[in-house]
Amino acid sequence: MSVTAARGFVASAGRAGIKASGDDIALLATAGRRPVPTAATFTSNLAAAAPVLVSREHLESTGGMASAVVLTSGNANAATGERGVDDARRLCRGVAHRLGVSEEEVLVCQTGLIGIPFPLDEADAAIPAIAGALGGSRSDGRLAAQAIMTTDTVVKEAVYEGDEFTVGGMAKGAAMLAPNMATMLAVLTTDGVCEPGALQDTLWRAVDRTFNRLSVDGCTSTNDTVILMASGESGAGGPAEGGPGRDGEELYPGVEKVCGSLARMMADDAEGATKTASVVVRGAESEAAALAAARKVAESQLVKCSLNGADPYWGRVMSELGSAGVPFDPSLVSISYGGVVVCRGGVAAEHDTVRVEGYMAGQHIEIGCDLAIGTGEAGMLFTDLGHGYIDENRTTS
Amino acid sequence: MSVTAARGFVASAGRAGIKASGDDIALLATAGRRPVPTAATFTSNLAAAAPVLVSREHLESTGGMASAVVLTSGNANAATGERGVDDARRLCRGVAHRLGVSEEEVLVCQTGLIGIPFPLDEADAAIPAIAGALGGSRSDGRLAAQAIMTTDTVVKEAVYEGDEFTVGGMAKGAAMLAPNMATMLAVLTTDGVCEPGALQDTLWRAVDRTFNRLSVDGCTSTNDTVILMASGESGAGGPAEGGPGRDGEELYPGVEKVCGSLARMMADDAEGATKTASVVVRGAESEAAALAAARKVAESQLVKCSLNGADPYWGRVMSELGSAGVPFDPSLVSISYGGVVVCRGGVAAEHDTVRVEGYMAGQHIEIGCDLAIGTGEAGMLFTDLGHGYIDENRTTS
Repeated sequence: MSVTAARGFVASAGRAGIKASGDDIALLATAGRRPVPTAATFTSNLAAAAPVLVSREHLESTGGMASAVVLTSGNANAATGERGVDDARRLCRGVAHRLGVSEEEVLVCQTGLIGIPFPLDEADAAIPAIAGALGGSRSDGRLAAQAIMTTDTVVKEAVYEGDEFTVGGMAKGAAMLAPNMATMLAVLTTDGVCEPGALQDTLWRAVDRTFNRLSVDGCTSTNDTVILMASGESGAGGPAEGGPGRDGEELYPGVEKVCGSLARMMADDAEGATKTASVVVRGAESEAAALAAARKVAESQLVKCSLNGADPYWGRVMSELGSAGVPFDPSLVSISYGGVVVCRGGVAAEHDTVRVEGYMAGQHIEIGCDLAIGTGEAGMLFTDLGHGYIDENRTTS
Repeated sequence: MSVTAARGFVASAGRAGIKASGDDIALLATAGRRPVPTAATFTSNLAAAAPVLVSREHLESTGGMASAVVLTSGNANAATGERGVDDARRLCRGVAHRLGVSEEEVLVCQTGLIGIPFPLDEADAAIPAIAGALGGSRSDGRLAAQAIMTTDTVVKEAVYEGDEFTVGGMAKGAAMLAPNMATMLAVLTTDGVCEPGALQDTLWRAVDRTFNRLSVDGCTSTNDTVILMASGESGAGGPAEGGPGRDGEELYPGVEKVCGSLARMMADDAEGATKTASVVVRGAESEAAALAAARKVAESQLVKCSLNGADPYWGRVMSELGSAGVPFDPSLVSISYGGVVVCRGGVAAEHDTVRVEGYMAGQHIEIGCDLAIGTGEAGMLFTDLGHGYIDENRTTS
């Protein structure tokens, strides 16, 4: 059930005192301390944090190979300038030294508050024990998954067991989950075989259809990172001889499944949310148009408020569809809640209101929209907006 | 202090029972029941409500001339299909009949809930008394301004008294105030002289710099309308002989001032908000880039939550600036609250934290951002996000 489910990986965790309590450093490494094909997608935010800059630089210099990932929680090391970049580099160096690998083979992920200098000395001092625990009795993917939690209330792990290979992953993230991945970190591993370029394409494609279709508050974080490492130890996914070279096609379903499970866990654990909702737009001019319309609905403060109040007010959904900037004719639109059509041809449809009211009181809400213009279809996962979200986010103290 | 401050206009109000209580129909007409140059801007929402479709059609058919505007509150007549369009037309027809003008010279604005058939018969029955009151002892711009209120808690009126002409206006709007005008209705009048084309340009320009730079929740309503009628009775704004033909240049400052005052009143009266904030972005590559960055900050759920908690967490502002899709280098950015710089060169700046904390506790917050890239500058007006907004919007009942 974790990032070490696939053969060839070990993980451990420890405490450096960055967070108020609990472990706050996680370490993942290849069992043989050797570099393996590694893909990553990072935040699109131009205020990208130091760990994003350093990880991107390291992956570029190795041509998509890495031996380890170090993750810290409690301080994002974002908006920390040159010093922050230096701190992230030194953190990688400390890990590399202990594992006997090169600094460029170590990637770094950090999450927490923005604009506060990272306590490097404390983190650095904790590394030897954490690295020493790898592969020993305290080595455990679950401990690593726990160490990266911030406002998360549940540990997020997922595993795909294929006939020939395994994909496992862990993630953290409970807010700022938006268009372009937002404050979320996810590390996936597989024992499938894949060369770096194909692995990168596989990850991009999976992230685009999972994490990038989840929105909690429309904010894009400075630290988002998804990493996928492939040890190749199963021999599957590659040519018969077990070497690299395949195009990732075989790995894709497993990678998408794990990404999807982790994304769904993030939505279910979203800060202060009481409901998880999905909106699927069908009949749009294209898939891109369907996604734009679904995203507009998913990010609407008013739609989110209605969900919080269990109010089947479809007029707000209609209004968002109409302002999504995609081809739209209100007189063709149908809207449904849990499969019950409440609006047809752009106007109110007779329906079983008691049934819909009961449905809206539930915890998982499905909104269906048919634009009846083309064949494009796409969905977004999102949450309601209630007092809880505000209480959690109004102050950092 | 009202839409009848400029010479040549009369207004009245009455009740049709659309809202639970109070007047819900307002009527504005030219004193001589004659068409005058009239400009309008409407919502960009493709799910535009019936009154928007009908008013747009009427203005086009008259070449920008109108004699009256009828406004109703409590039912948006949106997502009501063909019947809704027919209802809006019949409402105009009833008014036209009473005023002795053509149906196309009457514009219509409606606000309220979406997706519910409009009670035309009740409204129609109330028109004779309301039209009959025009110019009499119950004729009053203030009554009209009150009749268009929905969740508004204060009457919104503004007047600009120039040396040579007057501009007056009334508005309603307290939520869904977003990029493209959102649920807001505003009617302005002037006794300045202006031909229809120039009047339209003047209004577009003013709306772009006022109502379109106000965001409460990022939602764009189906019913937004701003109307400006010019009676020409002052003789000012036109050529010496008082005829039409000027380019609106002289009228512009007055129109912008009234639009700006009404927009500020909307922000201050925003549903459930406890604070009004402005964010000004300087040093952007262009004015458009500055506006995009300011809008990203103004529409950020997390920035709005921080405001609600009086928390000077500038990291969220930095993160939004970085994901606004405009040229940006975090190492150049400065951020200030009430003029006190809290971030300089992309990192935390030493500052008087007690002073900033005291400032954040106030009701009007000014956030300044300098991207230090170019000379583009623009600002947005917005509000915080707290329990009040949610309580007001979670159910329609």
